[in-house]
Amino acid sequence: MNPDFAVTRKMFELPEGVIYLDGNSLGPLPKAAMARVAATMQDEWGQMLITAWNRAGWMDQPRVLGDRIGRLVGAAPGTVVLGDTLSIKVWQALAAALALRPERRVILSDTGNFPSDLYMAQGLARLLGDGYRLVTVAPEDVAGAIDETVAVTMLTEVDYRTGRRHDMAALTALAHEKGALAFWDLAHSAGAVAVDLAGSGADFAAGCTYKFLNSGPGGPAFIYVAPKHAQMALPALSGWLGHEAPFAFDPDYRPGHGIDRMRVGTPAILQMAALSAALDVWEGVEPAAVHAKALELGDRFIDGVLAGCPMLQLATPRDHGARGSQVSFRHPEGYAIMQALIARGVIGDFRAPDILRFGITPLYIGVNEIDQAVAILTEVMRGRLWDRPEYKVRAAVT
Amino acid sequence: MNPDFAVTRKMFELPEGVIYLDGNSLGPLPKAAMARVAATMQDEWGQMLITAWNRAGWMDQPRVLGDRIGRLVGAAPGTVVLGDTLSIKVWQALAAALALRPERRVILSDTGNFPSDLYMAQGLARLLGDGYRLVTVAPEDVAGAIDETVAVTMLTEVDYRTGRRHDMAALTALAHEKGALAFWDLAHSAGAVAVDLAGSGADFAAGCTYKFLNSGPGGPAFIYVAPKHAQMALPALSGWLGHEAPFAFDPDYRPGHGIDRMRVGTPAILQMAALSAALDVWEGVEPAAVHAKALELGDRFIDGVLAGCPMLQLATPRDHGARGSQVSFRHPEGYAIMQALIARGVIGDFRAPDILRFGITPLYIGVNEIDQAVAILTEVMRGRLWDRPEYKVRAAVT
Repeated sequence: MNPDFAVTRKMFELPEGVIYLDGNSLGPLPKAAMARVAATMQDEWGQMLITAWNRAGWMDQPRVLGDRIGRLVGAAPGTVVLGDTLSIKVWQALAAALALRPERRVILSDTGNFPSDLYMAQGLARLLGDGYRLVTVAPEDVAGAIDETVAVTMLTEVDYRTGRRHDMAALTALAHEKGALAFWDLAHSAGAVAVDLAGSGADFAAGCTYKFLNSGPGGPAFIYVAPKHAQMALPALSGWLGHEAPFAFDPDYRPGHGIDRMRVGTPAILQMAALSAALDVWEGVEPAAVHAKALELGDRFIDGVLAGCPMLQLATPRDHGARGSQVSFRHPEGYAIMQALIARGVIGDFRAPDILRFGITPLYIGVNEIDQAVAILTEVMRGRLWDRPEYKVRAAVT
Repeated sequence: MNPDFAVTRKMFELPEGVIYLDGNSLGPLPKAAMARVAATMQDEWGQMLITAWNRAGWMDQPRVLGDRIGRLVGAAPGTVVLGDTLSIKVWQALAAALALRPERRVILSDTGNFPSDLYMAQGLARLLGDGYRLVTVAPEDVAGAIDETVAVTMLTEVDYRTGRRHDMAALTALAHEKGALAFWDLAHSAGAVAVDLAGSGADFAAGCTYKFLNSGPGGPAFIYVAPKHAQMALPALSGWLGHEAPFAFDPDYRPGHGIDRMRVGTPAILQMAALSAALDVWEGVEPAAVHAKALELGDRFIDGVLAGCPMLQLATPRDHGARGSQVSFRHPEGYAIMQALIARGVIGDFRAPDILRFGITPLYIGVNEIDQAVAILTEVMRGRLWDRPEYKVRAAVT
């Protein structure tokens, strides 16, 4: 059954006069998050003080929220835990994977992967020395590049620039065939597409919560470890909350049970309160239904834009099986075009060197917004309204 | 000039009937944090959406807040940055220090150090292999144990159990004499004592903000790198926000300028909003004056408790030069005694195996609270009021 998107839409604070097509970068404010965070501050922090770690269940939040996210990405209860940032979680997963394949030296990724994943892998390989290295190939060449030198594949399922989607099950099977492990970055998947971590056989995964899961700026990341590895993956970032008995204050590290060992330090409780409210929107909502609606709206957007703006080049695959939920176009003046759009209330974003990104997020975006965005983009392109000096001044964050 | 503690006290939400002596674990709610976080959510996240990263200055918060904390720990502007948890920041500092002493293999610490620091060092040494190891000695034996094998000393200035304070300047000088680097954990120092990172010659430091700086549960950590190392300390956790140009999306990591390279992933903006309000309390307040008052109140507490409760053993040095701001006592039934105190509105905490901890935090604790706490503790001890089964059941978090 399709979720009632008119209902989910009312659960978000959306400013007047804005068409928000950037939920793939930062999801909007769920209305319930205001009261949830205020209660966490006033009633828990303010009144219970230190005792809230027990009495308000703060210490359990990383696992409680992990299970709620697990449902959205096809992971069994007890296999996902929240904490840190996605970059840290990528690093933890890679370090654990390399330890499980001690005779291999290659982390294989693709050139379309998000740079922070590549950077973290480079940093880990440099730290380990001894021949460890990151190898990147074009996204379409990944399958052919998996061989017996590869310890772990590090792939982002949905490309942050183009929205192109890897075949998680097929590539994971290929990796396993060659004796490699598969790590998946779900930054642009969780809450956007139907992910089946358990079904695809993924070994490790990680993702962020501030995009399609709407947890707010700097919301915590999550990590998944397949049950078969959970007791073997000895954490390289061995923090006290990943210890078997954190409050025994033993001098020696002993890893906690299963996924708990992937916890590191004190969880960010205010961010988790916002996430908790954001996940309420997902009650009774299946990612598959959201993705289906995003594809339908995306087709409408693509058709409209290509009809009205022949100077824009589609960067996203048309094939439903090969894309996530965002839609992207290329244009050499992409930065200025996006500034002209934002000035007119259509918020998408730009990714160097030439990508205009539009997040299609059915929880709060419908046909009306898509049609209005097409009309405004068409107006901007036909009238060359982007061709003004003030639209070409780059901001620090784009 | 002494700060007016009657004024700072009014800036905190303190529940009726509670004497809060656990600000060394979680500081209380600064009243202004409620409105600050609400505005960040409603006006920035809610209304500006993605553009708030620039327009609301979110992306700069780790450096802006870093400079504000820098003032409280004797660090020059541009040498402190916020982010992650303390465990991660400890790891980053150790990895950077080891890279600066490639011919040495020992991280030297003391057995009183907070376990997470020891665990993170163990994890790093295990990952590096090649003879790297953590060596711990008794706190009083550190000075004698620094030799030419030591790459870096890892010491927490103020002991989390006893409140014993290391001599940062003297031990740093000793480390340098032997060619080692000095890393300092300021978890129980920042906001509690007058730290002089620059003056003491410390090479690296890190700390948390949710204790004496009152940023709330899971508030971000901070890291300090001495200016002379800032361009040399290549980060092992090389995340995109530590890149020279994060939004260029280069495939290869190039470290950012100075302390910026110690940033990793997306900053936790809601927690930073709370921290920002919490730091307003410190405007015009010098840590030295806060420490002086804490010592005075601490003496009063020690004298009162020792007079009323001869069965408790003082675990904190009496010497003002050798202690931070907390006061601790030992008793084999420490856990039950603390539960009995909490049931009577005196909140301190217990640390295994036998330590009763009391945070003395003059920003919001004065003579009246100290005297009441002494009276209640005396009543509990004299009447053996702790000797009840329900006080002996251990909670998950103690």
